[in-house]
Amino acid sequence: MPEQKIVIGLFGFGVVGEGLYRLLQDSPLFDVIIKKICINNIQKVRNASSELFTIDRNDLLHDDEINVIVEATNDSDVGFEIVCRALQKGKHVISASKKMIAEHLESLLLLQKKSDCSFLYEASVCASIPIIRNLEEYYDNTLIHSIQAIVNGSTNYILTKMLEDNIDFNEALKQAQSLGFAESDPKLDIEGYDAVNKWILLLYHAFGIVAKPEEIVFNGIKNITIVDITFAKEHGFEIKLVAHAKKLKNGKIAAFILPEFVQRESQMAFVKNEYNGVIVENIFADQQFFYGKGAGGFPTASALLSDIAALRYNYKYKKRIKKFEKLGTEFFLKSYIRFDNEEDLPLYIHDLKITGQEFITKSKSFCLNLPVELLLETDWWKINNISLIIFPSAIFENQSDELKIIQSIC
Amino acid sequence: MPEQKIVIGLFGFGVVGEGLYRLLQDSPLFDVIIKKICINNIQKVRNASSELFTIDRNDLLHDDEINVIVEATNDSDVGFEIVCRALQKGKHVISASKKMIAEHLESLLLLQKKSDCSFLYEASVCASIPIIRNLEEYYDNTLIHSIQAIVNGSTNYILTKMLEDNIDFNEALKQAQSLGFAESDPKLDIEGYDAVNKWILLLYHAFGIVAKPEEIVFNGIKNITIVDITFAKEHGFEIKLVAHAKKLKNGKIAAFILPEFVQRESQMAFVKNEYNGVIVENIFADQQFFYGKGAGGFPTASALLSDIAALRYNYKYKKRIKKFEKLGTEFFLKSYIRFDNEEDLPLYIHDLKITGQEFITKSKSFCLNLPVELLLETDWWKINNISLIIFPSAIFENQSDELKIIQSIC
Repeated sequence: MPEQKIVIGLFGFGVVGEGLYRLLQDSPLFDVIIKKICINNIQKVRNASSELFTIDRNDLLHDDEINVIVEATNDSDVGFEIVCRALQKGKHVISASKKMIAEHLESLLLLQKKSDCSFLYEASVCASIPIIRNLEEYYDNTLIHSIQAIVNGSTNYILTKMLEDNIDFNEALKQAQSLGFAESDPKLDIEGYDAVNKWILLLYHAFGIVAKPEEIVFNGIKNITIVDITFAKEHGFEIKLVAHAKKLKNGKIAAFILPEFVQRESQMAFVKNEYNGVIVENIFADQQFFYGKGAGGFPTASALLSDIAALRYNYKYKKRIKKFEKLGTEFFLKSYIRFDNEEDLPLYIHDLKITGQEFITKSKSFCLNLPVELLLETDWWKINNISLIIFPSAIFENQSDELKIIQSIC
Repeated sequence: MPEQKIVIGLFGFGVVGEGLYRLLQDSPLFDVIIKKICINNIQKVRNASSELFTIDRNDLLHDDEINVIVEATNDSDVGFEIVCRALQKGKHVISASKKMIAEHLESLLLLQKKSDCSFLYEASVCASIPIIRNLEEYYDNTLIHSIQAIVNGSTNYILTKMLEDNIDFNEALKQAQSLGFAESDPKLDIEGYDAVNKWILLLYHAFGIVAKPEEIVFNGIKNITIVDITFAKEHGFEIKLVAHAKKLKNGKIAAFILPEFVQRESQMAFVKNEYNGVIVENIFADQQFFYGKGAGGFPTASALLSDIAALRYNYKYKKRIKKFEKLGTEFFLKSYIRFDNEEDLPLYIHDLKITGQEFITKSKSFCLNLPVELLLETDWWKINNISLIIFPSAIFENQSDELKIIQSIC
């Protein structure tokens, strides 16, 4: 839409929607205006002219002057309907709704293919970090070896505070909530759902994989305790919730999101508080590190605005996938498991032979190489106050004897 | 050139040229081959089949099967001629030659405009960090507030070693040279010429400015001594050679490259050894940080390869400049000056009134707010073993009394 004025219909006036509104109020762009804002509750007092607001979606979708819909709602069913109707109406759509996009990725890709309009969603992953655009535009998928990332600012804030201030999980969670770093439902953050939704989007833009959450081993951080933090500190580590996607020797992609011990001097350890970070590794083990604010009204709104600006030159995602990759589970993770009761662990853990000695704690814990296939089958490692934390460079593709189980201590 | 095989004619077989060759040998891409390599010295033993090599440029430029020229020479006049002839011949060109491109930027932009072919040069700035592509594709120039960067891996390596190992400049330089982190002529690195060439390219892709080195206040690090390093450590700083470009209140762009005291916990301090880092700040003070290897054969060759991959979809730079910015010099820099003889300093330094007390060293030094216009006029601050180092957040647009000169000590 070069030379055309960008007239926005905005859905949602929460942290992100209001962030965009404020940003455009304070730094107006000559060719961008918000014409109408659709909300649920018209009674609520808003910090903007009441004439802007409506509760009728059609006031935006049927307005021919509105050529761009910005979807920043919290409801993924509503969001999906809005995106579909807007694209069908010939309007460009910018969205910040990772959950909605992850849940409907396949349909949205099809819809986008049929439409002449753009559907962009940089704001939905790592807020201010332009990671989708980089994966789309700079990295040929055949050249990407791995991506790893901290994609959830809320859990990263909690882990940072637990480590730095020696406070327990619940106290750190309360702090994160009071600062507005948590999603509306904390479960989404602390149980890893938010992270896996974002990871599904990056898996597509990195490797052309359309994955479902149940295909990916993922967890949050709600079982991490001060015992784990202390263990990490004693061994020169920090704990981060890190998402991984790595090309295996068989050509498939290992993808998972688990708490991880990271070296203090590493890029991942540099990512503190509500920040996010992504490492892209291309062939020859060369790494690029992208870092920025992963949450908050303005960082997210900035990403919306960059997408809006890209409409001026009709920008669309069209990842040029040379070879669609597949997810693979033929690998092991070098892991630490802390538990209260041995009965909570599956029998196969006890069958594995102990062959080495490494990473000893005084509390009940194992260190072992876990076949990822087994983690996909049951969720014992997510419940019963068990902590499953992986070590740096945790991925092994061949389980040699000395890597089976390293040490068990009671 | 979608669906077409990419047949490369490579100019130069130094660190970068050979890096690309090795990379394609070890990880072949099905649609990319190097057909011919033009070098200067045919006698030199090379680690590749002798049939690949020629000293006749026309063997590449007149070969109709070769559709892509990769220019990785060390000679900017030769490089410029090759780029011009290749584009005129209808061949795409990928280059790593910052000096050549910076010197001929205006002509090359014109030539690129007239040509149907792509001319890409991501490898020329920060090697593996996709910063040109990001500035081109993601950041609308009206939304960028500032960029700051460590763009020279060689000087960053030297400063890191001086700080960490407490060794002097010459010893650290020798180490950098022995590891191959210095350009062929160390003067280019240590006097800031390499940095200013790269900065000229980023100024264009960020703000649409076509600048010349003499319009930019820049220096290297050859006058930095252990006294300066000690001063930095005592005040919780490190020293980095940082390039800046920042929008002033009058709408013009402040651009300069000077040694700088940076906070230990900052992104810039995280950039150690031969690494590079770039911070892009868009409106509302939101920062994104890009980090990666800024030198070396493979990191640079990886960037060449990403540009080569982008030819598959006819990628071209076409920065959509909404408003061409201009350089401005109406600002002051809060600076530290260390010197051996007061007579080496210009008279105007002594005219400035001392109003505060801050940052005291035992050696001869001033701390003051320097009008940048004066620095453009003469180069007293580059010679006579004078160190001029700026403080964090050094830019001031209005010189208030308390910021004039902070303290002088003999």
